[in-house]
Amino acid sequence: MNVDKKQPTMKDVALEAGVALGTVSKVFNGLPVGDEYRIKVEKAAKKLGYQVNVYARGLRAQKTYTIALVFPNLSNPFYSGMADYCCEYLNMYGYRTLLATTSSDPALEQKCVDMVQQNKVDGIIAITYNPDLEINESIPFVIIDRKFDSNIPCVSSDNFAGGELAAEKLVENGCKNLIFLSVSSHVPGEADKRMSGFINYCEKNRIAHTEHVVFDEEGIEAIYAFIDKSIKKGKFSFDGIFCNTDLTAVRVIKHLKDKGISIPQDVQVIGYDGIKNFGFEDYYCSTIRQPLKEMAMTAVDIIIGNNSSSTPSLVCLPVTYCYGGTTRK
Amino acid sequence: MNVDKKQPTMKDVALEAGVALGTVSKVFNGLPVGDEYRIKVEKAAKKLGYQVNVYARGLRAQKTYTIALVFPNLSNPFYSGMADYCCEYLNMYGYRTLLATTSSDPALEQKCVDMVQQNKVDGIIAITYNPDLEINESIPFVIIDRKFDSNIPCVSSDNFAGGELAAEKLVENGCKNLIFLSVSSHVPGEADKRMSGFINYCEKNRIAHTEHVVFDEEGIEAIYAFIDKSIKKGKFSFDGIFCNTDLTAVRVIKHLKDKGISIPQDVQVIGYDGIKNFGFEDYYCSTIRQPLKEMAMTAVDIIIGNNSSSTPSLVCLPVTYCYGGTTRK
Repeated sequence: MNVDKKQPTMKDVALEAGVALGTVSKVFNGLPVGDEYRIKVEKAAKKLGYQVNVYARGLRAQKTYTIALVFPNLSNPFYSGMADYCCEYLNMYGYRTLLATTSSDPALEQKCVDMVQQNKVDGIIAITYNPDLEINESIPFVIIDRKFDSNIPCVSSDNFAGGELAAEKLVENGCKNLIFLSVSSHVPGEADKRMSGFINYCEKNRIAHTEHVVFDEEGIEAIYAFIDKSIKKGKFSFDGIFCNTDLTAVRVIKHLKDKGISIPQDVQVIGYDGIKNFGFEDYYCSTIRQPLKEMAMTAVDIIIGNNSSSTPSLVCLPVTYCYGGTTRK
Repeated sequence: MNVDKKQPTMKDVALEAGVALGTVSKVFNGLPVGDEYRIKVEKAAKKLGYQVNVYARGLRAQKTYTIALVFPNLSNPFYSGMADYCCEYLNMYGYRTLLATTSSDPALEQKCVDMVQQNKVDGIIAITYNPDLEINESIPFVIIDRKFDSNIPCVSSDNFAGGELAAEKLVENGCKNLIFLSVSSHVPGEADKRMSGFINYCEKNRIAHTEHVVFDEEGIEAIYAFIDKSIKKGKFSFDGIFCNTDLTAVRVIKHLKDKGISIPQDVQVIGYDGIKNFGFEDYYCSTIRQPLKEMAMTAVDIIIGNNSSSTPSLVCLPVTYCYGGTTRK
């Protein structure tokens, strides 16, 4: 790979085209210039293989047409799906996507934010659970799934309505005794509203309900232990389960099946996220689907819209119930 | 979001620090300067919130410390897993990741390559199946999973050995009559060697084997039709299946189960890729795992190593067999 090959300069193009350097500059910067000159310059640029230096242009315009995604990773399909749509929409608007993954490490997140600030990106779309993140106010910033502070717009699915919808669907499917199971972070986030919506529906409709929330450090094992205690004479004490994520739901379903409990005959289970096998096949389970595409579009619109007067602090997008075989319908 | 807030300049830092502009420039460019000056400048820069303008620096150094990933999408877990590792390793080396997704559209792929060339990235890591892609030779380019031409290094898993390994494992598990099932692209690629390796093992060891390959436009339905024809009196004509991908394997397994055939009791199935549920849970099926992490590391090493004298044209990394419940062990 010959990386030291000399690139032609604007001067070379001017010489080749037989026009002044200023004319070449005007053409490359989209300024008005007679058609015959424009054609001469474009021909010469093509002949020499001249590439417009976007860095030089970014320097002049004080705009980079680059948006940074700062995400924990791309192995989680929620994150990779979101990154996929963000990249697609940014590209549609002529923006580049700078990608930074952080493994949810707060120090690395801060470093990424600092790094993208130094790169003078036009904005940041982040998924972060770090409450102490310091963000330069001069950079447009959109956070997905967690309300950060009132100055930073957050885009999320309508978690509260999703919790209500899950309870409603379990009841519609004949469940009488519901439980909410969750493995959660200590950091408060929008996702907490899933439980609030679930409780709200049950209270309003006088449905028996229980909530069992464990924290990340206890992990799914603590949920398994709770389930084991709740199985009496081969029967699980609840007939409808709403889990805070599809991942939790899939693990819970497997554990219940291992204990001889039939899904959805004995117990029906609904997850949250709407993640599909291989990213595009069937749903893993019956689920409340987050509108990834619409969330990405909204985040991109906010970040490149740059309209501070109308930027909302929280945008919740509507969720839908999707049947995935772990409920009756 | 106050995006018009004026950023401090190097001049402001020089004034604040009480040093010459040249001194500030030296500090920001890592050139030698007395410690007392360096500390003064760093303090002043911090106080004013001065951010080094990486675009300006990139312009001077003719190096951007940016590598572009040009991938079809991030919804396919093979692509998102690869992007995840590439981003992680590039970050470790102090490089930024520019992400461009193409939906495998040849025109869009060409546009992405042109775009990243115009951005003057230091290199491109691509997954593309477009045989007519025009790549500027002056840009370091690594392609994953498909040999493009002899000047462009390709990183892939050892597909041939993987095909052999799949056949070997089926035989070890007691299979006597093997079949290879594949939904493939018309564009020749490294992945074609999976079948060659499979055939090679069977021929060498005198194992009965059949291959049935359909093309993308026929799709999985053509595989289902073949399977249906091969079921006689409720029995499938083959007892061991090697599929070209985990996705094909999962679909084949579901179809066979729907026809009343037990996996792995009646028929054993091995896929290729090593994709996991949710990106990090269990394998979907017994599989030949591609070493994603090592492939990403290798691609990054080649692309930032810039060592044209020792750049290989094809690097094949070793695969492993992973049990995933669809074989006896």
